[in-house]
Amino acid sequence: MDDKKRRLRTDYPFFLTYRTRWSDNDQYGHVNNAIYYHLFDAVVNTYLIGQCGMDPMKSKHVGLVVSSFCEFFSPVAFPDVLDLGLRVSRLGASSVTYEVGVFKSKASSEESNEAPDTACAVGGYTHVFVESTSRRSTQMSGQLRSNLMKLARQSSAPAVPKL
Amino acid sequence: MDDKKRRLRTDYPFFLTYRTRWSDNDQYGHVNNAIYYHLFDAVVNTYLIGQCGMDPMKSKHVGLVVSSFCEFFSPVAFPDVLDLGLRVSRLGASSVTYEVGVFKSKASSEESNEAPDTACAVGGYTHVFVESTSRRSTQMSGQLRSNLMKLARQSSAPAVPKL
Amino acid sequence: MDDKKRRLRTDYPFFLTYRTRWSDNDQYGHVNNAIYYHLFDAVVNTYLIGQCGMDPMKSKHVGLVVSSFCEFFSPVAFPDVLDLGLRVSRLGASSVTYEVGVFKSKASSEESNEAPDTACAVGGYTHVFVESTSRRSTQMSGQLRSNLMKLARQSSAPAVPKL
Amino acid sequence: MDDKKRRLRTDYPFFLTYRTRWSDNDQYGHVNNAIYYHLFDAVVNTYLIGQCGMDPMKSKHVGLVVSSFCEFFSPVAFPDVLDLGLRVSRLGASSVTYEVGVFKSKASSEESNEAPDTACAVGGYTHVFVESTSRRSTQMSGQLRSNLMKLARQSSAPAVPKL
Repeated sequence: MDDKKRRLRTDYPFFLTYRTRWSDNDQYGHVNNAIYYHLFDAVVNTYLIGQCGMDPMKSKHVGLVVSSFCEFFSPVAFPDVLDLGLRVSRLGASSVTYEVGVFKSKASSEESNEAPDTACAVGGYTHVFVESTSRRSTQMSGQLRSNLMKLARQSSAPAVPKL
Repeated sequence: MDDKKRRLRTDYPFFLTYRTRWSDNDQYGHVNNAIYYHLFDAVVNTYLIGQCGMDPMKSKHVGLVVSSFCEFFSPVAFPDVLDLGLRVSRLGASSVTYEVGVFKSKASSEESNEAPDTACAVGGYTHVFVESTSRRSTQMSGQLRSNLMKLARQSSAPAVPKL
Repeated sequence: MDDKKRRLRTDYPFFLTYRTRWSDNDQYGHVNNAIYYHLFDAVVNTYLIGQCGMDPMKSKHVGLVVSSFCEFFSPVAFPDVLDLGLRVSRLGASSVTYEVGVFKSKASSEESNEAPDTACAVGGYTHVFVESTSRRSTQMSGQLRSNLMKLARQSSAPAVPKL
Repeated sequence: MDDKKRRLRTDYPFFLTYRTRWSDNDQYGHVNNAIYYHLFDAVVNTYLIGQCGMDPMKSKHVGLVVSSFCEFFSPVAFPDVLDLGLRVSRLGASSVTYEVGVFKSKASSEESNEAPDTACAVGGYTHVFVESTSRRSTQMSGQLRSNLMKLARQSSAPAVPKL
């Protein structure tokens, strides 16, 4: 069973902290649903560039998003600070599915006494790697795949913690 | 079977045409995946405001997004002009699931001889209606539900056209 | 004298119509100030690509923004439809300053009886053209400059109409 | 003389560190000019909410942007981390002009040996405070004005450091 609502920080091996921006909030005073996907892109590509040797302007292979999804459990709002946890939930030869857990950082949530350890939203997307010019599907390089594997290892941990 | 890749313009009862913006394109020269969700929000809320009497700053009930998804079939890029088709794929008492088909408008695709009638992407989200102050789930008003029903009727049409 | 508040539609030789998006509005229920700059980029680059032969992914010369500005006279809000007027207010050998007038389209403003012919905002930016690889300043091509000149001609018209 | 190109970190009394996002970069591989205005809004409103008691959804007075500007000196690019310095350059009874200096954080610029102490861009905007319902111009509260004054004090420092 895959109960994303119960994701914990320990389900994610890589974290980045992101400040929200004024314009992330929509008229209802909360971070707009589309903004989460911008944040997914931010954490995934930071990992690809920083840990996997990807250079978006030069690399022969680029990742194209073929599908994406998000479930929203509790709202966040500017000026909250967010901790974005990244894991790989599926790793093929030429494609990878990332999952990102969005948590309020402790700094943001102290005042409100909210438990910061439950994800406010969980989403992600699937990258298919293609040659940057022909846009034909291609196998990942060994370096890329082994670095993505590091995030996948964690997925052996039960998504729903045992009681 | 729900083969989103085969959606046609005729699967959607309501359309709006949107120009892309320079900043919709990311470094790879195509509209970024997160932008599609901004467009979903645009067409859904235009319908809610224009056809259903919703006023985001005053209405007692507002729609909160609880989950969203998108599948990407072929890229679009600024300065393409997009036709966004809207249908309701599920309509409950307090929640509704919208599906948006993203098509290149004929103006955009004439030069390239691409068939403009196949969706480039299909996605959407589920709104749960809540009271705007308490944020407690609430039933839709009759006016709202009947106007959403107009978009749902179309869903009786087969998603995959008969051959 | 340069009273931008009195700009009229007739001050701009090139127009594009843009729908606003739900997420353009910020918490105060109006289009956020930063969004106007996205719209400036949209109309300028549509003109450069469509009328001046620019191809952002291939052209040897690209325009870098070195300064930008905007004055805001009256708010606009999603789902308003906007008419963006473009003129060239200064044209050098390697740089050009664009000015964009933002008008509510007649469709948007009919109900509210607002006069749609006064600009809601006027802004723009200066492009310096550089070689795309070296990023060194370069003279515009003849084709580019002559097409920008077409937008500059209009600038001989008085910004403040005679009474 | 107001040579914004020579602004230093010491010219700004309040700082926030912001990560860039993948979608901040445009097709040319650098943070798009409009994104800087999103960042200005982020740092200004964080200060107003955190230090001045502003609550955007409840406050009787809100700040409307009447003009904005930015000068761009050297590009920044995702995944750079940015330090945003905030000062008040003009403080009236009902209006305030903020200036934001955008610096690469030391973390971002170590590798490239760039001097991180020169601003990559300097911009800002003028807020006129209005009553949130009538949108009529109003004087700032004493609390707000005195907290903005703390950022203005710094403006007595010469913008261009003496040699």
